[in-house]
Amino acid sequence: MTIENIDVHNYPGSEKTYLSGKMHQIKVPMRKINLTPTVKIVNDERIVRENPPVYVYDTSGVYTDPNVKIDINQGIPRIREEWISKRDDLEQLPGITSEYGRMREADKSLDGIRFSHRYAPRRAKEGRQITQMALARQGVITPEMEYVAIRENMNAEALGIKSHITPEFVRNEIAEGRAIIPANINHPEAEPMVIGRNFLVKLNTNIGNSALSSGIEEEVNKAVWSCYWGGDTLMDLSTGDNIHETREWIIRNCPVPMGTVPIYQALEKVNGDIRSLTWEIYRDTLIEQAEQGVDYFTIHAGALRVHAEMIPERLTGIVSRGGSIMTTWAVMHNQENFLYTHFDEICEILAKYDVAVSLGDGLRPGSIHDANDRSQFLELDVLGELTEIAWRHNVQVLIEGPGHVPMNKIRENMDRQLKACHEAPFYTLGPLTTDIAPGYDHITSAIGAAQIAWMGTAMICYVTPKEHLALPNLEDVRNGVITYKIAAHAADLAKNHPGAQVRDDAMSRARYEFRWKDQFNLSLDPARARQYYVESHKNDDRFCTMCGPNFCAMRISQSVADNCSK
Amino acid sequence: MTIENIDVHNYPGSEKTYLSGKMHQIKVPMRKINLTPTVKIVNDERIVRENPPVYVYDTSGVYTDPNVKIDINQGIPRIREEWISKRDDLEQLPGITSEYGRMREADKSLDGIRFSHRYAPRRAKEGRQITQMALARQGVITPEMEYVAIRENMNAEALGIKSHITPEFVRNEIAEGRAIIPANINHPEAEPMVIGRNFLVKLNTNIGNSALSSGIEEEVNKAVWSCYWGGDTLMDLSTGDNIHETREWIIRNCPVPMGTVPIYQALEKVNGDIRSLTWEIYRDTLIEQAEQGVDYFTIHAGALRVHAEMIPERLTGIVSRGGSIMTTWAVMHNQENFLYTHFDEICEILAKYDVAVSLGDGLRPGSIHDANDRSQFLELDVLGELTEIAWRHNVQVLIEGPGHVPMNKIRENMDRQLKACHEAPFYTLGPLTTDIAPGYDHITSAIGAAQIAWMGTAMICYVTPKEHLALPNLEDVRNGVITYKIAAHAADLAKNHPGAQVRDDAMSRARYEFRWKDQFNLSLDPARARQYYVESHKNDDRFCTMCGPNFCAMRISQSVADNCSK
Repeated sequence: MTIENIDVHNYPGSEKTYLSGKMHQIKVPMRKINLTPTVKIVNDERIVRENPPVYVYDTSGVYTDPNVKIDINQGIPRIREEWISKRDDLEQLPGITSEYGRMREADKSLDGIRFSHRYAPRRAKEGRQITQMALARQGVITPEMEYVAIRENMNAEALGIKSHITPEFVRNEIAEGRAIIPANINHPEAEPMVIGRNFLVKLNTNIGNSALSSGIEEEVNKAVWSCYWGGDTLMDLSTGDNIHETREWIIRNCPVPMGTVPIYQALEKVNGDIRSLTWEIYRDTLIEQAEQGVDYFTIHAGALRVHAEMIPERLTGIVSRGGSIMTTWAVMHNQENFLYTHFDEICEILAKYDVAVSLGDGLRPGSIHDANDRSQFLELDVLGELTEIAWRHNVQVLIEGPGHVPMNKIRENMDRQLKACHEAPFYTLGPLTTDIAPGYDHITSAIGAAQIAWMGTAMICYVTPKEHLALPNLEDVRNGVITYKIAAHAADLAKNHPGAQVRDDAMSRARYEFRWKDQFNLSLDPARARQYYVESHKNDDRFCTMCGPNFCAMRISQSVADNCSK
Repeated sequence: MTIENIDVHNYPGSEKTYLSGKMHQIKVPMRKINLTPTVKIVNDERIVRENPPVYVYDTSGVYTDPNVKIDINQGIPRIREEWISKRDDLEQLPGITSEYGRMREADKSLDGIRFSHRYAPRRAKEGRQITQMALARQGVITPEMEYVAIRENMNAEALGIKSHITPEFVRNEIAEGRAIIPANINHPEAEPMVIGRNFLVKLNTNIGNSALSSGIEEEVNKAVWSCYWGGDTLMDLSTGDNIHETREWIIRNCPVPMGTVPIYQALEKVNGDIRSLTWEIYRDTLIEQAEQGVDYFTIHAGALRVHAEMIPERLTGIVSRGGSIMTTWAVMHNQENFLYTHFDEICEILAKYDVAVSLGDGLRPGSIHDANDRSQFLELDVLGELTEIAWRHNVQVLIEGPGHVPMNKIRENMDRQLKACHEAPFYTLGPLTTDIAPGYDHITSAIGAAQIAWMGTAMICYVTPKEHLALPNLEDVRNGVITYKIAAHAADLAKNHPGAQVRDDAMSRARYEFRWKDQFNLSLDPARARQYYVESHKNDDRFCTMCGPNFCAMRISQSVADNCSK
């Protein structure tokens, strides 16, 4: 199989630039938005003032680097390969160790859809602690840590804004468990990024085919598209055919960390029959995916048998797929959830590849009615207990959160999560602040996401306009990502992240000076801003169509200001 | 002129119903959403449970009443005519008293675009205090007050939820100035509604042609369209030709209170030359519009001469048209803003027609950078001073608020407004929580609007996706209104408005039971929800396309619940 129809775009008015590290041989990407000069006529004299460029965080990887030739069939450059190959705590395996992975590899009928370029996986040497958390605790500042420190600070440095984010600060946050760098040693294509409440708020996007739709090419396209618009991480939630092969294509071409929910694939392996799920099948799935390079696993280990009995208290029962599967399994077998009982073994596996665990909230509320109920908070306490276990194995931890929560109940979620889960980073799905707007749930949820991110949630999982109704297409992904970039950025501003306001100020200055091109180029979605403007604009660019030529408030106010300063 | 192309829609699955008053002969509209029954098969037995209808607040007027024949050329029924004609404190004038109004009336060349059905205006009898506030202070519960009390309580009553909102409660809130009922005696077509922080959060929409675009028919269509989607009030911000005639068409067909910014028209009358503006022209404009039936005027009486000197402190100067016009006038004439110096006379005029004053925030911040600066708060203090003057004249008061404000600075806006303006209702434009997303400013602002509404803002002014870029078309109006309905409803939930959660619960129950039609009909935008679903749906309606047939969390959780309860 070869893939040809990948849409690669460039950001208008922008250049890809890289900053170098001081401790390590690293080059950290960012996007430099070049601005036009300000031109004023004062007393018949033309005064030109240059405007400095604005640097923005860039999640698009090499797809927006004109110096890199993109070939999806080869995969993107493995930027961390050199850092990893230098390490003495890792071993190169002769091949895949997962039973299922080997079976798929041996299946000739799959040759037609297989990603052809294969890499043998790495794993921790016996007895070695290799995760970013383990290294941080040993006092090591890894290349990944320096990388994210530079990445978080782009405008701060250029403008001399004092930033608390140093490589040492990153190391300490990782060591304390307050932040994670999801960076499977088998996904060296990914550009390191950090998730923690003392950093920029991140956003996750979901892609994935279901049994009903969506081929490999479409999924790779969605992944690239999501990164282009600003997705910081990507979850592949596929439940359809050829999950293993699709995932390989995505990972080899994915410049951001990728997550999965392994129970979905495990259930596919038993043809959707929950009763037939076993720990052994699940365990092999973890290894299979860890060796492909998945950076974090959502694991619903906190959804317990007792939760099944609480369903009648709820209006919408269990709305998490993973949570419903595991409680059902527990009831059917009259045993505790095997993800809970085997959690130590799970962590041992994850620690070998530095896969982070994202503790799934199987009992997240699916309606305003069910928000903050005892099922939800019982599970949260269990997640706190599991966090401590994971940390004993040096496994990096994220905690997943709701869901549907009215605004007056959001704060309690954040406060309890920080306490119950010992400040492990929180990662929420919205929350949606009302149930009554299907078709607009990117908005109902962005309202909640902005608030909880401001309060301290480290990563927000996007919701598209099609939530509750259908799978998103490319345009829905774009709308979902931009909406969540807005929520994340609004939170960064509210948290006074160093340099976060630089882009807003540049935009507002461009607005006040009628520099329209700069306004488009500085915006989160330049193409759409330009399109709306062009569609209705007539010739004179010294006013916008809001006020008309006689009424522009900003133009009037400029001339008053000019008069006053004379 | 006759208008034919008015789009009138009906809400799917819904009936228009009316509740009667107990004190007055009034019928209060609401929309009844009928639901399908829940059907379950338990032990081969088919169990059918009826689901009660859900009542929702209905802003669409007679446009969704199949028993009323709509003829835009006649205007909609004048429902308050009888209440008003009974009053002994009003007089019927022989004709328009505004000089400009009489001139337009005499101009034969305008016959072709004139609304043909004319009504002579009413005014307070000499020496009589006729506003809702005056009556409330005298202890009178008007039909308007009983009307809004019923309107606010629709589900509370049906479900036996105890509500604090009684006619007497409404009267007291109006008397205290904490709420207003904008209800010009010359706009009897409008259905009474209340704006105050102890009631449902309301949303305003803006329409209006600029010099560049938009005809009469289009504006009337936008007005009806805005009411259909849920706009509670409507501001006509026209600055183009034939403002007077366009306004007459809109008011005679507008089932919600309408507001304007009279300085826009006053400036048109002097051909856009700010220097030529005079108090006399403005005064005549107030009378002209009050006699047409405008329910509230935005008046930028707090933008003072001193503000002009503060412009250089700001990144984006003055972004309010009214504010920039008045400060410029003040600087040009080296005099104080005439709206400030003539504020007593303004209130005398408004009190005669019961026009409410919406004190404009001419100094609202136009960028994150300028939020909460001294210009803004200096003006807010002036608005507080003006509030007391208006209340001495029994004029109902709204206070307009920002603008662009990062989340961490929103609370201060609300706290200071309540204190400075003696709890007069706050009416904000957003606020936008970041500057960097033109094309998505309905979302950047809904994030702020939901929060400030929760904190106590009584009405939020919608923002469309085209803000900062272009004038909105019908689709933009729809997106703007629905986005703001979401923000308002999220705030109503957070404030525990009696019965607000009924619709959410009905939606979530329908979702859990796969009653798709009910989900569409209960949603804020039934057409879009249905469209997204239908586009991607295949046959089986027992799952949605999110999870596919094997994985539906809610279906799994239902069967577990059924098993547990056996």
